[in-house]
Amino acid sequence: MRDIYILGVGQIPVTKETDQSIRRLAADAVRAALADAEIERVGALYVGNMLSGMLSQQQHLGALVADAAGLRGVEAATAEAACSSGAAALRWGIMAIASGLHDVVVVAGVEKMTHTDRYETTRALATASDWETEGSKGHNFISLNAVIMQEYIRRYRVNRSLFAAFSLNAHRNAITNPYALFRKEVTILDYEQSRIVHEPIRLYDAAPVCNGAAAVVLAAGDKVARSRAGRPPVQVVASAAATDSVGIADRRDLLLLDGVMFSSRRAYAQADVLPADIDIFELHDAYTIMAVLSLEAAGFARPGQGLWLGVDGEIGLHGRVPISTMGGLKARGHPVGATGLYQIVELYLQLTGQAGPNQVPNARIGMAQNIGGTGATVITHILKRCD
Amino acid sequence: MRDIYILGVGQIPVTKETDQSIRRLAADAVRAALADAEIERVGALYVGNMLSGMLSQQQHLGALVADAAGLRGVEAATAEAACSSGAAALRWGIMAIASGLHDVVVVAGVEKMTHTDRYETTRALATASDWETEGSKGHNFISLNAVIMQEYIRRYRVNRSLFAAFSLNAHRNAITNPYALFRKEVTILDYEQSRIVHEPIRLYDAAPVCNGAAAVVLAAGDKVARSRAGRPPVQVVASAAATDSVGIADRRDLLLLDGVMFSSRRAYAQADVLPADIDIFELHDAYTIMAVLSLEAAGFARPGQGLWLGVDGEIGLHGRVPISTMGGLKARGHPVGATGLYQIVELYLQLTGQAGPNQVPNARIGMAQNIGGTGATVITHILKRCD
Repeated sequence: MRDIYILGVGQIPVTKETDQSIRRLAADAVRAALADAEIERVGALYVGNMLSGMLSQQQHLGALVADAAGLRGVEAATAEAACSSGAAALRWGIMAIASGLHDVVVVAGVEKMTHTDRYETTRALATASDWETEGSKGHNFISLNAVIMQEYIRRYRVNRSLFAAFSLNAHRNAITNPYALFRKEVTILDYEQSRIVHEPIRLYDAAPVCNGAAAVVLAAGDKVARSRAGRPPVQVVASAAATDSVGIADRRDLLLLDGVMFSSRRAYAQADVLPADIDIFELHDAYTIMAVLSLEAAGFARPGQGLWLGVDGEIGLHGRVPISTMGGLKARGHPVGATGLYQIVELYLQLTGQAGPNQVPNARIGMAQNIGGTGATVITHILKRCD
Repeated sequence: MRDIYILGVGQIPVTKETDQSIRRLAADAVRAALADAEIERVGALYVGNMLSGMLSQQQHLGALVADAAGLRGVEAATAEAACSSGAAALRWGIMAIASGLHDVVVVAGVEKMTHTDRYETTRALATASDWETEGSKGHNFISLNAVIMQEYIRRYRVNRSLFAAFSLNAHRNAITNPYALFRKEVTILDYEQSRIVHEPIRLYDAAPVCNGAAAVVLAAGDKVARSRAGRPPVQVVASAAATDSVGIADRRDLLLLDGVMFSSRRAYAQADVLPADIDIFELHDAYTIMAVLSLEAAGFARPGQGLWLGVDGEIGLHGRVPISTMGGLKARGHPVGATGLYQIVELYLQLTGQAGPNQVPNARIGMAQNIGGTGATVITHILKRCD
């Protein structure tokens, strides 16, 4: 495979309200990434998006965003894999370059979710579940994650307040991320007094509904003439994907995310690293239980032990496995199709020393993992600072 | 780029009614393609689909169809580019192999469109237009194509009945395709007496709303141990994509499909062929006017002359540029996200001598072109029989 580098990144602030169209949100992120990369033309644009057809009466975002971003004529298309749509688009972009069909591409993720009523948004999100066996039976992602979290609490006999560590860490890191949605301290008291949205999930266990867009410019190593002054080059050293059953009733074990396991292991093999080599793990903390199970299935903790990484402070910026370093899905926000790209933008900022107060010291290898459904599609990327 | 071959194909009959779920339709086509290729495992599944979220409350088809087809665990995702979603998925699969990330993949296209009321389906299809400037103003694809056809008739001063040649050719070829939706002769009288759905478009100028699924198995040349007995190998010698403005008011000329021109020229250059070398052109005849403009922009006729290829009988099975050889979008049917794969399945049958009564004699090089919107996304593939 050709060496692939990140040339530049762009993002817009995550919001709860916007008067911009979805094409404008995406085009703004694309233009920011092109400007950061100091280039004007690319061979293709891939867009990660899940909900635009249902919530904005607009499919065909590839061609639409390309034109709005000043790229009329280039190849363009949309990738969809539920909440992992962003990473799916990134993977497409990587393949486009690795195949030799393109030398430079831009990948964007975008979602606009707050302009419709809450019922409509929740119903659209439930199309990521197995609609026949879950969505149409009244399940949504809060209730599905509640089933899993309840089982974790039962099997491992843990106090559910322990999950707070993941929420507090994410919110703490979001305070100093100017693109994050929630920039306020959350205390253990706030967590424990927060509303139970679906037993045992509290409001502070779940990522918010919001709008956002992020983008990255990728280029083949042999086409990268120079790296931006003062910035070390960042290489994509692994891209791997795996699936599991969409319906959670079909899983071999509710608490073992096979998709995470297979996707992570494939990525480790490609990059020739082990979990201990990962300096930052931007995981998919749409729910605190998903963060815990991801740490376990990705090999950072044994089953039943992931929770303790949070409780023991090992997930902080100076801990053993820093996660959600810019706020994560929980506090930076989870504009579904954009999340996979926000993760890459944030890793890039970390690996190039541009993360400001959120900088993880000496970060050289970062892993991002984007999940669709409750572990049904899992896409993992590993980035490496090369200097 | 690695050499890529088609190992096998699968399709289900196009229908106006179905009691099957969308996952089942797609899984049936995938299983048929795997059986035809005589393999059981692949590295990835890419699904082309446009409408499932809006009409079947089901996104996340990648993982869902993979599991239903017995492929749980493999990489899987959905590609969307409006009515060119099928070809977009195919292109993703080609890149997956060309990049070296996979050796064998299956690509499927699926659409289920007839189970909702006509208004809902039309509205969902209009999300392929520029919703802000077209769809929300009451435009749909019939009215947009009507604007273009009217301009063709006006500028070139042609009798609108001449468009019948394209409809009659498609219907004639569909009669002997067991997977086609309409298998009946259509006469010039039928055409002229058919209902005007939107001046100047008659019912017989437009492709029908229907259900269907088709799939192909792709493999890297160095991994193809053998070709099926009696079948010549078929190689993918070009894959190219281009975009244009989604809204037709932004085009430089309503009658020049720049997306078709750029996409075709890129494909010709890759395959090192010219239009005269193409033995079959499976074009995107969602409307007769689109067939005419595609022939012109792809270099088979000068502007204003494409219509005459039909009138002069050059588009028939024994003509200079056979099109819609198994019925095309008009008569085989246009289950949107599946169309791009039906085109490839049909080309493969032609190039391997399996097209029965529809066989184009000595067909060695075939081109398929799938269009999203009214020319906004155009994806072109060229296949070559290698023996």
